Formats: sequence, structure tokens, C-alpha cells
Amino acid sequence: MKALQYREIGSAPQVVDVPDPEVGPGQVLLKVTAAGVCHSDEFIMGLPAEQYIYGLPLTLGHEGAGIVEAVGDGVTGVKPGDAVAVYGPWGCGRCHMCAQGKENYCLNAEAEGIRPPGLGAPGSMAEYMLVDSERHLVPLGGLDPVRNVSLTDAGLTPYHAIKTSLPKLGAGTTAVVIGTGGLGHVGIQILRAISGATVIALDVNDEKLALAREVGAHDALLSNADAVRAVRERTDGRGADAVFDFVGIQPTVDLAGGMAATEGDVTIVGIGGGALPVGFGRIGYDVAVRTPYWGSRAELMEVLDLARAGAVNVEIETYTLDEAPKAYERLHEGRIRGRAVIIPND
Amino acid sequence: MKALQYREIGSAPQVVDVPDPEVGPGQVLLKVTAAGVCHSDEFIMGLPAEQYIYGLPLTLGHEGAGIVEAVGDGVTGVKPGDAVAVYGPWGCGRCHMCAQGKENYCLNAEAEGIRPPGLGAPGSMAEYMLVDSERHLVPLGGLDPVRNVSLTDAGLTPYHAIKTSLPKLGAGTTAVVIGTGGLGHVGIQILRAISGATVIALDVNDEKLALAREVGAHDALLSNADAVRAVRERTDGRGADAVFDFVGIQPTVDLAGGMAATEGDVTIVGIGGGALPVGFGRIGYDVAVRTPYWGSRAELMEVLDLARAGAVNVEIETYTLDEAPKAYERLHEGRIRGRAVIIPND
Amino acid sequence: MKALQYREIGSAPQVVDVPDPEVGPGQVLLKVTAAGVCHSDEFIMGLPAEQYIYGLPLTLGHEGAGIVEAVGDGVTGVKPGDAVAVYGPWGCGRCHMCAQGKENYCLNAEAEGIRPPGLGAPGSMAEYMLVDSERHLVPLGGLDPVRNVSLTDAGLTPYHAIKTSLPKLGAGTTAVVIGTGGLGHVGIQILRAISGATVIALDVNDEKLALAREVGAHDALLSNADAVRAVRERTDGRGADAVFDFVGIQPTVDLAGGMAATEGDVTIVGIGGGALPVGFGRIGYDVAVRTPYWGSRAELMEVLDLARAGAVNVEIETYTLDEAPKAYERLHEGRIRGRAVIIPND
Amino acid sequence: MKALQYREIGSAPQVVDVPDPEVGPGQVLLKVTAAGVCHSDEFIMGLPAEQYIYGLPLTLGHEGAGIVEAVGDGVTGVKPGDAVAVYGPWGCGRCHMCAQGKENYCLNAEAEGIRPPGLGAPGSMAEYMLVDSERHLVPLGGLDPVRNVSLTDAGLTPYHAIKTSLPKLGAGTTAVVIGTGGLGHVGIQILRAISGATVIALDVNDEKLALAREVGAHDALLSNADAVRAVRERTDGRGADAVFDFVGIQPTVDLAGGMAATEGDVTIVGIGGGALPVGFGRIGYDVAVRTPYWGSRAELMEVLDLARAGAVNVEIETYTLDEAPKAYERLHEGRIRGRAVIIPND
Repeated sequence: MKALQYREIGSAPQVVDVPDPEVGPGQVLLKVTAAGVCHSDEFIMGLPAEQYIYGLPLTLGHEGAGIVEAVGDGVTGVKPGDAVAVYGPWGCGRCHMCAQGKENYCLNAEAEGIRPPGLGAPGSMAEYMLVDSERHLVPLGGLDPVRNVSLTDAGLTPYHAIKTSLPKLGAGTTAVVIGTGGLGHVGIQILRAISGATVIALDVNDEKLALAREVGAHDALLSNADAVRAVRERTDGRGADAVFDFVGIQPTVDLAGGMAATEGDVTIVGIGGGALPVGFGRIGYDVAVRTPYWGSRAELMEVLDLARAGAVNVEIETYTLDEAPKAYERLHEGRIRGRAVIIPND
Repeated sequence: MKALQYREIGSAPQVVDVPDPEVGPGQVLLKVTAAGVCHSDEFIMGLPAEQYIYGLPLTLGHEGAGIVEAVGDGVTGVKPGDAVAVYGPWGCGRCHMCAQGKENYCLNAEAEGIRPPGLGAPGSMAEYMLVDSERHLVPLGGLDPVRNVSLTDAGLTPYHAIKTSLPKLGAGTTAVVIGTGGLGHVGIQILRAISGATVIALDVNDEKLALAREVGAHDALLSNADAVRAVRERTDGRGADAVFDFVGIQPTVDLAGGMAATEGDVTIVGIGGGALPVGFGRIGYDVAVRTPYWGSRAELMEVLDLARAGAVNVEIETYTLDEAPKAYERLHEGRIRGRAVIIPND
Repeated sequence: MKALQYREIGSAPQVVDVPDPEVGPGQVLLKVTAAGVCHSDEFIMGLPAEQYIYGLPLTLGHEGAGIVEAVGDGVTGVKPGDAVAVYGPWGCGRCHMCAQGKENYCLNAEAEGIRPPGLGAPGSMAEYMLVDSERHLVPLGGLDPVRNVSLTDAGLTPYHAIKTSLPKLGAGTTAVVIGTGGLGHVGIQILRAISGATVIALDVNDEKLALAREVGAHDALLSNADAVRAVRERTDGRGADAVFDFVGIQPTVDLAGGMAATEGDVTIVGIGGGALPVGFGRIGYDVAVRTPYWGSRAELMEVLDLARAGAVNVEIETYTLDEAPKAYERLHEGRIRGRAVIIPND
Repeated sequence: MKALQYREIGSAPQVVDVPDPEVGPGQVLLKVTAAGVCHSDEFIMGLPAEQYIYGLPLTLGHEGAGIVEAVGDGVTGVKPGDAVAVYGPWGCGRCHMCAQGKENYCLNAEAEGIRPPGLGAPGSMAEYMLVDSERHLVPLGGLDPVRNVSLTDAGLTPYHAIKTSLPKLGAGTTAVVIGTGGLGHVGIQILRAISGATVIALDVNDEKLALAREVGAHDALLSNADAVRAVRERTDGRGADAVFDFVGIQPTVDLAGGMAATEGDVTIVGIGGGALPVGFGRIGYDVAVRTPYWGSRAELMEVLDLARAGAVNVEIETYTLDEAPKAYERLHEGRIRGRAVIIPND
């Protein structure tokens, strides 16, 4: 079959022929219907050899959806023909975290060498994809795979971040979203759908602010030095009850810290390399600053519920597998609006 | 001044002349701008003498708003001319509950004979009203007192009930509101504003169901014996994650219990006299059944925040103080749409 | 192999010879080291035919521990020789509840005919036991199986009930445990280990109250009509912040309701058939009344953590498999102190 | 009357004669029975003029207890002769924070110039002390004022920090306390009393570690570079579920960050000037880092409940008012064991 692989440090990903995967006991083989392109793919392909830990060659794609093609011995919960999305952050399934479905925080993954598809295991950017356990599949339940595959990361990641802050986002509260791209524009919709917060979006140009308003932001402001003052003005001086930074560079984490209200949350999702110093007098009292990673199995189901209810729509551009290298080029150039999706069997 | 008083067990309330109240240390005198008419007024006026504990004569009105007319010694937080709403469930201000602003659950109120205005202390259905402490006042902040006075009970009570259930009302969940009258039609709006739940309203006729849809219910059904099945169908068999029963008669509490999902909430707000038996096998596992009362000081502020954001609108009919007895007649006849409001200084 | 089976409605359980179980893909075969005897076994064996839903013949034992004897294809997380405890409330592993490890509340179990071992599937009272998935096994980590097997139900069930109430059991609070038998005497220890509550135990005779004090209750009282007054006296009139009723007959659920503080919890664990009517004026405001069932996978791990820390000790009596019928006789006569444990391979 | 005042930037505090305070409407005059000496007094007396915002002369003492001597007009909840503790973080009493009793986070205090006693308003290190409102008093309920006055800060501050983390401190969890001095040695006791966590204390010498063990730490380690590894070893590699840093210098906040488990809490209480950088890859996923300040009114009541239950004992040294300057000298020299308490009317 054909697959998109990262084969050499520093090179561009290529479409190559690889052996067809075969299903073993407990495994599920999917015919891939959609595979999402993510900034973190680009991030890892940019790492120098000494920091790169994902194996070579690497079939890309940690956002995936497909039709069950075959199931291994012992698989009872899915059957050929089922349309499913893949829960990506695979864990051991046995530890205290996995026992709660928080496989993104598996206690044994590192020791046991368990890695997500597309980030170590062969990913979804291929005609077929092997999933290690039926528990990593969620029924699509009528959702279009192409329009929704990105929810497995670009939906799940902001959803998890927002859900953690939800107790602070009741009536009369304010949430700020910094960065309105792939994750941010979904985050805005999630906030509108499940919280009582007034949503303020921050980004660097008017086009992005227009998209933010279009998907539901009550207000959208340029994320410049004036943004802290602007957010405080809109909140009677209190600041934002939760700030979600989907960029994560130093200027945005500083903004986030500066505009967080007492007892608020600052959640740094973006992997831009910034760090917010937390110490007495440096930030509002009892502001909780954290950096989450992906989300849980139950949370993925909840995100898909939101999509089925029509509350979340991802902006997408589609590509065939052969065009996939071009999608990464456009991503690198910042020219993707929303999210790029590969359709390997198109 | 003129006041509406309940003067004799079993009689109708009357407009009478009473002495003007005088402000003492720590107290605040309001010129009343609006006073809400509530079913519970009717309820207590229907009690036989041996169960009636509110004192006679009783100036009615536990929903109130006004303009500060005068302040007593030691009052520093409000001043004449300020437009305020009255937090009704007065407590001692010192106990562990009051220290959290949950004066509705004051531990000393009964022992110290502290009673809410209109339910023991002289209420808001008069030209002037004495408030025992500035802490029982919340600035209206530009809200119209007539349109919003009912939020102090008909808004605060459902808000408190819903806020308690909020952790169970995220993405993919379902809330049921039984009874779409004074409290229920506000409850629907609050659910839409601050939760991720799909909202299903139940009531007894099509006119009421139409109002429910108008204020935001996703679905509205007749609250007959078929309602349990209908709610289960709409939730893949799981049932509702929270049911708010604003009627509270035996048939409605039975419905509520029958349609609650595992780990759901059943909140009986209505004082219709029903009781839901909770025991092993009688109701879904870990369904929490409770009967709340009014709400906290902070919650009242949050309800007013929702109103200022345009998220909550109360349907009202207005009456002068002289017409107030007529309002209670119409209430008794079930002819009020939404909430009746008295304007004592009209 | 030998197994203890319930073979005919109304008859006593018998030791019989049954075929050795064979391990299939994804399954694990255990050589049983310990199997706990539970009141609910007696309860189901007392049901008339039309209510009995567990299949015949039924190998008893829903509390189990063993040594892994063999693993099926696809099992990677356990290996022969591992000492494990069995998580009993098996579910589908795929639904929203199971995805959080709450298999006790599986949404598909009923439809798919999935039943716990000893309550439909063949249980632990046999020389060997088949476990349907490795995810239903928890490493014992050095714990003695005989002394701790009961924690899989008699520990997990009160633990789950208490954990749900934990936010209400901080400093200055009071918890009441009604019934100090198999579950109750473990519940007292859990409360002491993980909450800040003062623990009051209620039971019917002085011997039981002595055991309650021995395992950590701060106070122990007869569960008679005077108990409500006694608890209120010890709490300055407020009542108990959480009441756990491990008996669940009408007199005890009534006691529980009568002594619960405003905003407290009443948790009815015992299957004694009682039901507490919840309605306005019948019980303290915002008291949450619920009936839980067993617990989650992560909670079982936490209970075993408590045991390893020495915080929970189960009182036990041991029996061989041949003596197992006698254990049920003694249970029926109320003569077991703590919990009876069968050692099938003794 | 006599009072201990800080009168000039950079000078030592002095005992001076000041006019007797007179009680106004709503106020309460206390005859002081005990006043606690705190590191933060020393901290503010060490500030240069341009950073000093507490007014001069300043009567010290933000931990206070006394007997009500006189009450102003409108005060109804306390009366002369009552023994009380003072809630120190005074707020406006009206804002959304104060309405929940979180006056430590009052939204108006800064704008209205409201300051705590001893930190702007005249404090407790005087024969008499004026309290601005009865709501800032909590009955001692039989507690010895001298032994317990420190709980109003050295108890309340760690209690608030710990209570926030309590949902993460159930069975099988680990809490680390860095710094076992005034606040830390109380924190250890609070953790033991209300959480299920194993408590590990870190400090710089064996004498301090001995005190930590004496007050209940399960383990006590030197807070050197090896401490991160030592904590990870004791937690199977997971790290601590909550770290409370009562020192707050750069080396301790770095330790705290390095040993926090995924989804854990790092709470920086100490005002040592350190700051922990939070960013992707710098710290465990979803670790929440925060800096709290003091606590709420209800929390102070809860701390006193713990003391009455015998769960918290403060190590103290006592001084007369005339000896107070010496207490600050010894504090500066690090020679106080536990907490110093001034008895102004000795």
C-alpha cells in the first residue's frame, strides 16, 4: 500500500510503497477514510537527530478515521464495515491513568515503548492503518470522517483544556483564546457550546479575528501589548477567568499571565517554547498555570457528541495522499485555513 | 405609606396604610421600584393557622428592588440614589454557611428569629422597605428593576439548582425541565446560557410548550406517562443527566425519577408536596436526588450578570400597588404568563 | 475441577465437578487463591425464579484473587505467575462509562449480556477462573490474597460511596456509618484514612459497636430511635455531612434521612429494601440521596493502595472450597465476624 | 495604651504609647489576648521606602485574638466578654469574592484602601484593637488564644492551600511539604488530618526533619538536589500529587516543579522570591502551579474546628508586649521554634 513517510532527518515527507499491515490478536485493521495534518508533525520533522525519538521511517498521521477492514482474534466490539475515529494517545490500558481512560497520561507508555500512531507507531497517512486495540476506536455515528477527523486532536486537545477549566467558566465569566488557528477556532466553538463565558479571541491580523468572530467569539482583539489592558477593561479590572494559549510563544504566555484574574486558569497548549514564571507577586493570586497534552477517551466521545449536535465545525482543506507533501508545504508557509485533511483512498 | 399586607389567616391580601419605616444603624431604607409576585406567597396564605409561622400582619414581597433612600450609621457600601436588588434569604451573616454567602442555609436564622422580607420581615410590596444590612443589596448595574426584580427568586432559585448540577451538564448531556412557568422558563434560559446540555422541557399543554421552545428549549414534550420513554429514546436509552422539577407534585417527581440517567441529578424545586422514594433498585445508580432552597449571595450576582449579558429575560405583567390584590387573584387562577410584578411607586 | 455452584432455585450451593475452563484470545486463566463470600450471594439465592436473572448452574464468587495460570492470544500486560485481584463489575470496555473505567455503570452490559463473575459469568469459587480481559485484573503488589480479596467488593463498594462524598468531608465535618459488618467496618477505616470527618458508627448491639471503635470510629451508638437526636447533639444541631447506610432497611434509611445536615449526603448502599422519600420539607435542603453500585477500576487500585499502606484491614474467617457451603450457612445465621473467605486450592 | 509600632523605614519596631481606640458604628473593640509574630512582618519592615505601602506609623500584628470589650451601634452578633479570633484579610464585604467569604481576594480592597490589621490598619500588637466589622470575628469556642492565635495566618494560609489541592490527595497519593517552619509544621498536621496522602517533608537540617516527623510526616528528607530523585523513588516514578512550598526561593520552587506528578499541584506559598517557569516540556503535563494568599472566612472556622478536635497544634514561644522587639530579633536570627506569640495584656 501507499503511505506518507518521514524517512530521513531533515527531509520532506514522501509517498512510498510499504507492505500491507496484517491484523494480529486484539488488533483492528482500518481502511483509512481521513487523516489530519497537524503542526506537531511539522514540529517533530524539524527536530535535530539527537532530539528525534519517533523512529524512522515514520508513517505520519496521528489524526485518523477509517472503516474497519478486519479484526483480530478476541476483538468483539467492532466489526468490518464500522466507521470509526481513532483515539490517538495510546497507553498501556492497565495503569491507574489508563483505567480512567486518560491514556494520554499513561504511566507505562514510556517504559513499554508504546507510542501514538503517527508519532512512533505507523499512522493514518496510508491506505490502511493498524490499531492496537478496539478500545482506541470511537464510532463516528454518522459524522463525515473528512470533516471531523481533525477533532481527534484539534478538537480533543482544546476540549480537554477547556473541560478542566469549566468550573471557573460559569455565568459572568470571561475566557480568552489566544491563537485562532487549527485548535483555537475549535476551542472558541467549544467554549460557546459548553460554558457560560464571554469569549474574547486574540490573534495577529484582522483576517484571523474575522474567523474568530465567525465561529462565535463575542469579541476579537489584536494580540499586541495593549491586549492585557483591553481585557481588563472588558472585565471591570478583574481579568479573564481562563486564558487558553494555543500559540505558546513567550509573548503570548506573558500576555496570558498578565490578563488572568485571581483564581483564574492559564492553560498553555501551544508548543511555541514560551514559559510563564509563576511566583509570589508575578501573577494573580491562585491563578493555576498548566500545560496539558491531548485528552482522554471519554473526552473524545464528548467532542464527537458536540459535532453531532452541530456545535463544532472544523474549517478544512482536502488533499489526496499523493498531494500530502504539498499540504505540509502549505502548512509550513502558514497558508492553511483551519485544518488540512488527507484522503488516502480518494 | 401604603403596603400590601396579609392580615388574617385565610383572607385575601389588602392594601393598607402603615407607619413609614425608620432606618437604624447598619440598615438601609429603599424606595421600592419593583416587587415580584410569587407562588410561595399564595402557598403561605393558604396555610392553616397552626402551620403559619410568618407573623401577622405580614407585608408581602420577597422579591424586591429599589433606590436607596437613606442609610443608617455604619453603612459605607451604598449611598442614597443607588439602584439595587434585594438578596432575600437573610441569615445571621456570621455562621459557617453565611460566611460563604449561603444565607439561605444560615445555621442560626431559626434560633435567632431571622426571616426573609415578605416571609416574616416586612417585604417589598410597599412604598418603602427596610433592609437589615447592606450585604443584602446587589447593585442593579443598569438593569431595569421592573423587568429583572423576579430574578431575585425566580432567577436565583433555578440558577442555584442548575449550578449545582453543572458538572454533570457538559458536552453530549441532556437536561430536562419540568414545568415552564415562573421559574421553569428562566431555568431553560439559564441552562442554555451556561451548560452544554440539550434541554428538553415538559409541561401540560401546547401553549406552555411553545413558550418553552421560544425561550430556548431544544425540545418540548407533554409531561404525561409517555414522557419517560420519550426522554430515553432521545438519549439512546441513557436518560437525562439532570432533571429539574419546578412543579414537585407526585406525578412529576415520579417522572423525574424514572427518566434520570445513572449518576444523574434529580432536583425537586417545586413545592407541590410530592416525594421521590430513593432506594436500591428504585432509581438509577448514583442518581442524586435533592430539594434545594433559593440561592447564595454570589449566585444572585451571577444571575444578574446573565441578565446584563442578555441571556435571561423574564416574561412579566405589571401592576400598581393598588392593583396588587388582583395580581394574586390572577395568579391563583393560573392566568399569569411568566411573572407578575408590582410597581409600588407607580 | 471443583466449583461451588448454585444449581437450583431455592437450594443450597453445592461443590461439584465441572470441566476445566480453557483460555481464549484476550482472556486470562487464574488459579484462584481466594474468593470472598458476600451477602449479595445469599440475596440472589433467595430470589424467586421469576426474579432470578443470573443463570443456572451458577459458579459463585464475585470477589476473587488468583495467580495467572495462562493467557490467551493478544494478552500482553500480565503473564503466568502474576498475583492479581479481579475487578468484578465487568462491562463492555468501549462505552462512555467504560472509557472512564466505570464498568459498574456500563451502558451496554445489559444489552450485550455481559455479567460479573459469580453473578452470571462463572465466579471465583472454583479451582480455576476465567477472566474475560486483562483490564479486569489489578496486581496485588505484595498483598496477601486471602486477607485482601474482600476488598474487591467489600472494600471497593464503600470506597466508591465515600469518595463521591469526599468533598463534603473536610475539617469540622461528621460522617455516620450505619451497619458495621462486612462493608461498614471497612468503610469506617476508609473514612479515617482519607477524610477529615469525625466518624460515628451506628449498629444494633454492643459487640458490633466495640468492633466499630476498634477499627477507628470516634464514637459508636445504638441505631435506635434516639440516634437522630444523638447525632444532632454531637454536631451542634447541624447533623451529619454524610451518612452511609450499609443496611438499607426502612428504619435505617429513615434514620439516615433524619440526621443528614443541609447540603449533606445520604448514601444507601445496603440492599435491605428500604426507600427514603425525598421531597420539599421531608429532608434537609440540598441533601443528596443516592444508591451507588460497586465502583470503578481506578477506585479498586486506590483501595488496594490503602491496604498496602496499612490503612485498611478486613476481619476474615477462612474456609476450604469443600467447607464453602458451611460458610453460607454461618452467613445466613449472622455468625460471620467481618468477612468469610474461601481458599479453593488449599 | 501601649502598642508595638513600626515607625520609620529600616528601623526596629518599638513599644510606644498611642491613644486608646474608640468604637464606631458597626465596629468591635477587642482587649487583645494574643498576637502572632510572622515572617511577613519582617518582610515588609525590610522593604525600601518606595515599595512600602502599609503606612507609618504601623501598629503590627495581623494575627490576633481577644475579648470583646465594646461594640458599636448596629453590632448584634457579638457582645462584651466574648472570646474571639480575628479574620485578618479584610475586604469590602460586598463584592463577588467577599460574598463568598473570600475577603483575601476582595475586588475592591485596593481601590477603597481597605487593608488588613497589622498590614495597614492598626494591628493586634497593642492592648486594644479595633475590628471594622463583626463578620471578621470567629468565636474561639474554648480554644486557648495564646496557643491558637497563629492559626489565623500560619494555620489559615496552609489550610487554604491544602484544601484547594484536596481532590488530588485521596488514597494512594503523596504530598510534599517544603519548609517545616511556622506554616509548614502546621501544614503537615493539616494534611494528616484531612487528606489520604502520604506526607513527605523536606527541610535543610536534621533538627527540622525531626520536628516534621514529630508532627506527623511519614517521611522527612533533606531538601537538596537529590530530593527530586528521592520523591520519585518513593512514588514508583510518578512524583508527588501536590507540593506545598512554604519557602519559595528559587531552589525550592525548582525542586517543587521537578517532583510534581502529571496532573499534580505545585503551590508556592513562601515569599522567597522564586518563580517556576511553566511551559510545554518544562514540567509534568497538567501540573497546576499557583501562588495563593491567606484564606477565606469559612476556612478560618474550619482550621479552628481542627484545633478543637486536637488535630492541629502550633509550637509557640510567648513574649510580653515589652519583649516584642526581642521576638522579632530572634525571628530574624532564625531562632524561633514554631511561632512567637505576644501577650499584650500579660
